[in-house]
Amino acid sequence: MLPIVVDVMGGDNAPKAIVDGALSSSAQGIAVELVGLASAIENIGSLKLHAASQVIGMADEPGRAVRTMKDSSIVRAAERVRDGQASAMVSAGNTGAVAAAALLRMKRIPGVSRPAIATALPVPGRAPKILLDSGAMADCQPDWLLQFAQMGSAFARIRYGIEKPKIGLLSIGEEAEKGNQITKAAHVLLRNDNSIDFIGNVEGRDILDGAVDVVVADGFTGNVALKTIEGTIKFLVDQIISILLADGVGEVGKEALGLLSPIASELNPEAVGGAMLLGVNGIAIISHGSAGPLAIENAIKVARDMVDRDLIGALSKAVTAS
Amino acid sequence: MLPIVVDVMGGDNAPKAIVDGALSSSAQGIAVELVGLASAIENIGSLKLHAASQVIGMADEPGRAVRTMKDSSIVRAAERVRDGQASAMVSAGNTGAVAAAALLRMKRIPGVSRPAIATALPVPGRAPKILLDSGAMADCQPDWLLQFAQMGSAFARIRYGIEKPKIGLLSIGEEAEKGNQITKAAHVLLRNDNSIDFIGNVEGRDILDGAVDVVVADGFTGNVALKTIEGTIKFLVDQIISILLADGVGEVGKEALGLLSPIASELNPEAVGGAMLLGVNGIAIISHGSAGPLAIENAIKVARDMVDRDLIGALSKAVTAS
Repeated sequence: MLPIVVDVMGGDNAPKAIVDGALSSSAQGIAVELVGLASAIENIGSLKLHAASQVIGMADEPGRAVRTMKDSSIVRAAERVRDGQASAMVSAGNTGAVAAAALLRMKRIPGVSRPAIATALPVPGRAPKILLDSGAMADCQPDWLLQFAQMGSAFARIRYGIEKPKIGLLSIGEEAEKGNQITKAAHVLLRNDNSIDFIGNVEGRDILDGAVDVVVADGFTGNVALKTIEGTIKFLVDQIISILLADGVGEVGKEALGLLSPIASELNPEAVGGAMLLGVNGIAIISHGSAGPLAIENAIKVARDMVDRDLIGALSKAVTAS
Repeated sequence: MLPIVVDVMGGDNAPKAIVDGALSSSAQGIAVELVGLASAIENIGSLKLHAASQVIGMADEPGRAVRTMKDSSIVRAAERVRDGQASAMVSAGNTGAVAAAALLRMKRIPGVSRPAIATALPVPGRAPKILLDSGAMADCQPDWLLQFAQMGSAFARIRYGIEKPKIGLLSIGEEAEKGNQITKAAHVLLRNDNSIDFIGNVEGRDILDGAVDVVVADGFTGNVALKTIEGTIKFLVDQIISILLADGVGEVGKEALGLLSPIASELNPEAVGGAMLLGVNGIAIISHGSAGPLAIENAIKVARDMVDRDLIGALSKAVTAS
C-alpha cells in the first residue's frame, strides 16, 4: 500500500504529538510519511518528511488560506493523495481548510454534488453514531442531503460493519411535514430512495439516544448539533467534577469520580480517530484539534482500513445506485 | 389584575397536575381561572372553569388543529386574553398549537414581523440562558432574527433583571463570515443595531457555558439545539445513574448520586416555569409537556410578573426603538 501522508503541523499539539502518533503507527507496520516545516520537526526516526514552507492556522479563513498558501502542509498533503504518492491523508488542522484543500486538489468522486464531513459520536456499548454533514457545507440543497444519506450509509457499513445502517434526517419533529423547507424536501427524497434504510426524521434528543445509526443534516445544523453535544457534555462533566471534588465531600467524591471516569474516556473524541471527509476522490481524515498521539495513531489506522476496504469505491457506488 | 387563564387539558399530566398547580397559585392569592372539558375535571375548589368541548393533542398538526378545533381549550384560552377577560394564558399543551392560537387570536404586537418562542435554559449559579426562537418559525428571514434579538433582550431585562443582556447569534464559528446565508445577513443587522449588546456569533458549545445571556437562532436551528441539549443531558444522566447504581458498586454509588441529584434538579426544565411566546399581543406561556403542579405554579407566577412589569409594552418599545 502507498504510505498514508500525515500533516504534522495541524492541531493544538502539533508537531510533537502528531509525529509521535505517526511513529507509533509506523512501528506497527503501517507505511506513513510526513509533511510539514522541516525546521519545526525533530526526532522523526526513519519516517520520510516532505517539506512544506507554510502552515494554515486554526483560525484562518479556509478558502482563502488554501488558495493563497499553496506550499502549506495541508495543501501539500492533499496533493500527494491526488498525485498517487500517498493512499490517504490525515490532518488535525483547520477543518475547513482540510476540506477545501481535499476538494480543490483531489476533486469530487464522479456523481457527488458536494462533500460532507462525517463525524463519529462515541456512544458506550454500541457503534458510534455518524453525523453528517457536520460542517463542510453550511447552505445545502435537498438533493445534497440525499447524497449525504447515501454516503453516510456506505460509510457506516464499511467503517463499522453495520449491514443496513438506519438513516435519520435531523429535524424538529418526527412527522414528515415538520421541519424547514430544506428538510421537508429532503424527507421526500430520502423516503423514496430504496438504497438506504430511512427511518424518518429524528430530533436532537435522538442523536445519542435513539436507534438511528446515521444522522443527516445540512452542514450548518449538523455543526450546531455537534458543538452543542460537545458543549453540553463538557458543561455537565465540569459541574459533576466540581460537586464531587468540593471541600468537605471527601473520599466518596473521589471514589465516585473514579467510577465515572471511564465514561468520560468513552465519550472522548480522541477515541474515535477523527472525522471523515466523504465525497472527495481520496481518503481524508480530519482529526480533532486537540488530537494527541493516540488520536493520530487511531486516525492513521482508520485511514489504512478505509483504503483497504475501498471506501471510495463504495461511496461512488452509493451515489449512483439510486 | 385580570385572572390568568390556565388550559387544564395540556401536557402529559393533565388535567390533575395542571389543576393542582392552579389551586396552589390561587391559594397564594393569584387570580386564576381554568378552561377545559368539564367532564374531565374535578376538585377545582372555588376556581372558575370555562368549558371547552375539544382538546388538541400533543401530536396534532398545530395550524390545522387551531383552524378546525375552535372550541378547544387552547383556542378558548387565547380568546379570553384577546377579549380582555384574562391577563395572560398558561398551557402545557402542544407547543405549536399554543403558538398558532396565540398568534391567530391575539395577533402580533404592532411592528413585530414574527413571534418567537423564548426558552429559558437553567444554568446553576446564574440566570437561565434564553434561547429564541426555539421553535415557532422554522424558516426565518434575517430581519426576523434582528427582532428576536431585540425581543430577547427586553425579555431578559424584564424577566431576569439583566440590565444589558449579552446577545449572541447561534452560528458555526465566531467570525462574522462563518455561518449560513441567514446568519451571515443577520450578523450584519445585529452588529449595526445600537439598542442591543451584540457580542457576535456564538457556537453550540457556548449556549450553556459562555458569557452570552440570550442566544438568537431561527426556529429550526434553535429547536435542534434545545432538543440536543435536553437529549445530551438525559443521555449522560442515564449513563451516570447506571454506573453508580450498578451491581457491586454499593454505598459509594448511592452517596454520590445523592450528591449529584441537586444538579439534576437545577437543570430540570420544571424549575424555570416554561417557555414564553414573544411578539404576540398578550402574555402566553408554554409549559413543558411533562409539567407537574410545581411547573404550572411557577408558570402562573411568571405570567403574573410579566403582566405586572408590562412585558408587552417593553417588547413593543424594543422592536420599534432602532
